[in-house]
Amino acid sequence: VCKPALVNIADLPTPALVVDLAAFEHNVTTMGAAWPGTSLRPHVKAWKCTSLARRLHERGHVGFCCATVREIDGMLAAGLGDDLLLANQVVGVNAKRLGDVVARADGRVTVAVDSDATIDAAAAAHVEEVLVDVNVGMPRCGCAPDDAGRLADRARAAGLTVRGVMGYEGHLMMEGAATKAEKVEAAMAILLRAHEAVGGDVVSGGGTGTYATNRWVTELQAGSFALMDTDYGRLGSPFRQALHLHTTVISVGRKWAVLDAGLKAIAMDHGNPTVADGDVWFVSDEHTTYAPAEGGALPRVGDHVRVVPAHVDPTIAKHERMHLVDGEEIVDVWDIDLRHW
Amino acid sequence: VCKPALVNIADLPTPALVVDLAAFEHNVTTMGAAWPGTSLRPHVKAWKCTSLARRLHERGHVGFCCATVREIDGMLAAGLGDDLLLANQVVGVNAKRLGDVVARADGRVTVAVDSDATIDAAAAAHVEEVLVDVNVGMPRCGCAPDDAGRLADRARAAGLTVRGVMGYEGHLMMEGAATKAEKVEAAMAILLRAHEAVGGDVVSGGGTGTYATNRWVTELQAGSFALMDTDYGRLGSPFRQALHLHTTVISVGRKWAVLDAGLKAIAMDHGNPTVADGDVWFVSDEHTTYAPAEGGALPRVGDHVRVVPAHVDPTIAKHERMHLVDGEEIVDVWDIDLRHW
Repeated sequence: VCKPALVNIADLPTPALVVDLAAFEHNVTTMGAAWPGTSLRPHVKAWKCTSLARRLHERGHVGFCCATVREIDGMLAAGLGDDLLLANQVVGVNAKRLGDVVARADGRVTVAVDSDATIDAAAAAHVEEVLVDVNVGMPRCGCAPDDAGRLADRARAAGLTVRGVMGYEGHLMMEGAATKAEKVEAAMAILLRAHEAVGGDVVSGGGTGTYATNRWVTELQAGSFALMDTDYGRLGSPFRQALHLHTTVISVGRKWAVLDAGLKAIAMDHGNPTVADGDVWFVSDEHTTYAPAEGGALPRVGDHVRVVPAHVDPTIAKHERMHLVDGEEIVDVWDIDLRHW
Repeated sequence: VCKPALVNIADLPTPALVVDLAAFEHNVTTMGAAWPGTSLRPHVKAWKCTSLARRLHERGHVGFCCATVREIDGMLAAGLGDDLLLANQVVGVNAKRLGDVVARADGRVTVAVDSDATIDAAAAAHVEEVLVDVNVGMPRCGCAPDDAGRLADRARAAGLTVRGVMGYEGHLMMEGAATKAEKVEAAMAILLRAHEAVGGDVVSGGGTGTYATNRWVTELQAGSFALMDTDYGRLGSPFRQALHLHTTVISVGRKWAVLDAGLKAIAMDHGNPTVADGDVWFVSDEHTTYAPAEGGALPRVGDHVRVVPAHVDPTIAKHERMHLVDGEEIVDVWDIDLRHW
C-alpha cells in the first residue's frame, strides 16, 4: 500500500478516515492510568493496525487480544508477539492456519477454547497455551460455566498449558449506570467460580464499556477506547472521539445535502452515523443524505463535512489506512494492515 | 493478492465469499434477454470486480456504470473502458483524480453532473462528456428537473458534450407490485421532460428492482441481479441467489450456534443475514449467533453453514476475493479489485 505524501487534510481524496492524534493520545493515557502495563490487553480487532498497536506497546501494554488468524499473523510479523491471545475459537482450516503461523514465528500465542473440538484443534495445531473461554451471560462463544473444569483437565491431558479463563460480558457494555456494577459483578462471579475449577494466573475479560466497572479480571480486553464511536460516546466516559470520516459535499438539494461516503465507508450495525449540526436521513452505497439541523444553512458543493461512525470496529475494517492529524495537518498515515481473515 | 490453488470449498479458510457459477450465468442470461447489449449498463459498484465485468462484456454489455474514481481507473486499466459512466458527482480532489485517470488512459468516460460546481469540475478535469443527473423523487443527487435544461446549456458553454440525462428511481426499487408500474412511470415522466430540455441520445436509469417495470430508459443501470441478496430476493424476480458466505461453526451453546463471520464480513444496513433453517439472533464483529429453526438440531463444531447477506454491494466490498463454484468444486477465483475510492 503506498502512502500519500503527508499533506493538509483538505488535499485528501474523500472519503478518508482521519484520527485526531491528541484525542488518541488522551484516550491511551486515560486508559493506561486505570489499567497500566499488562493489566490492559488491547483488542486489535477494534482497529486492525500494527502502527496503532505499536503505540500501545510503547506504553507498556505488550500483550494483545486478536480475533482472527490474520491478526495473529500480522502482529507476529510486526514484532508485536510478546503475548498474543486469540480470544476466539478456531477449528478446521483456520486451526491449521494458526498452527502454521505459530510454527514459523517467534512469539507467544494463546488461544481460547470452549469445547472438546477446539481443544483437540489447538493440540493438533501445536499451539502450546490456552484459556478456557466461559459463557458469562451473552449467547455467543464460551463453555457452560460448570464445564470449565472438565475442559481444563482435557486440555492438560492433551499436553496444553492452561493459563486461566476468559469471559466477555459483552451484553453489559451498554448497560445503564444504575445497574451496571451489580450485573457486571454477577457475570464476573460466574467467571471467578469457573476460574477456581480451571486454575492458572489469568482472568481475562471486560471492554471499553466496563473499564471502570469490572474490578475482577486480571486483564482488560478493550480496544474501542483508543478511537471511540458515537455508541460508546453515549456512556459519558472520559474517552474522546478521535476518529471521523473526512467527506465532501457532492450535491445539494432543496432541503438536504449529499456526502460522498456511504455504506462502503461507514458501518451501519449500530445505526446511522452522525454529522455535526445535521440530521442524517439515510445512507446509500456511496452517499449519506442529511439535512442541517433546524435553522442551519445548507452547505455548498465542495465543502468538507465530518462524519462520525456509530461503530468503530467494522467502520475501520472498510478502509485501507487512517490519517493522523494535528489540527488540519496530516502528521502520519497508518496502514490498516490486519484486515480480512 | 495471491490466489489460493483451486480446491474444494471445504478447504477454504472461513469466512469466504462463494459464488454459484450456474446461478450467476442464469442471472446474466435472464437480464440479457430483457436488456440486451448496450441497453444494459451494468453497475460495477455492486461487485467491484473486473473479472465479473469481463463476463458481462463478453455478452455484449460493453458499457458500464461506476460509482467511484477507483472503479473508473480499474475498469480502464482492465481494458473495459469502451463506455464508462461515472454515475456520481465529483468535485475537488476527486475531480482532479478523475481528470488524471482520463488523461492517461484509453477509453470513453462520461460523468454525471447536477450543479454548476460539478459542471465546472468536469470541465476543469478535461472530462469531455457528461450526463445531466436529474432528481426523480429520491432525496439524493440529481438537479431539480426544471433546472436540467439550464445546466445542459451551461455544460455545452463550458465545452462539454451533453449525452443526455440520468435519473435513478432508487426509492421505488422495493415498491410493491400493485403500485410500482404507476410510480415508476411517474418518476420517468419527470426524467423524460428533463430530457426534452437537455437533448442527447441517452436516458439512463433503473436498477435490478425495476428491470421489468421501467420501459422508458434507453439503458438500465443494474448490478445486483448478477449475484443477488435476500432483500432483492423478496421481490420474487427470476434472478437466483448466487452469492453466499461459507462459514464454520466455532461454538455451540445450549440453544444456539456461533459462526465465524460477523460485521466485518456481512453488511447489516438491510438487516440480518439469513441462515438456512435457522433464525439469526445477532451479529457481532466476527460472529453470527443463530438458532436452528423450530425442531431443528444444533450443528456440530466444525460444520460449515451458508450465510446469505441482505445487501450484496456493501458485503462484497468487505472481501478480497470471491470463489466461483460448481457444486463443491472451486473453478475460479475473482479478485474484488475495485474496492475503496
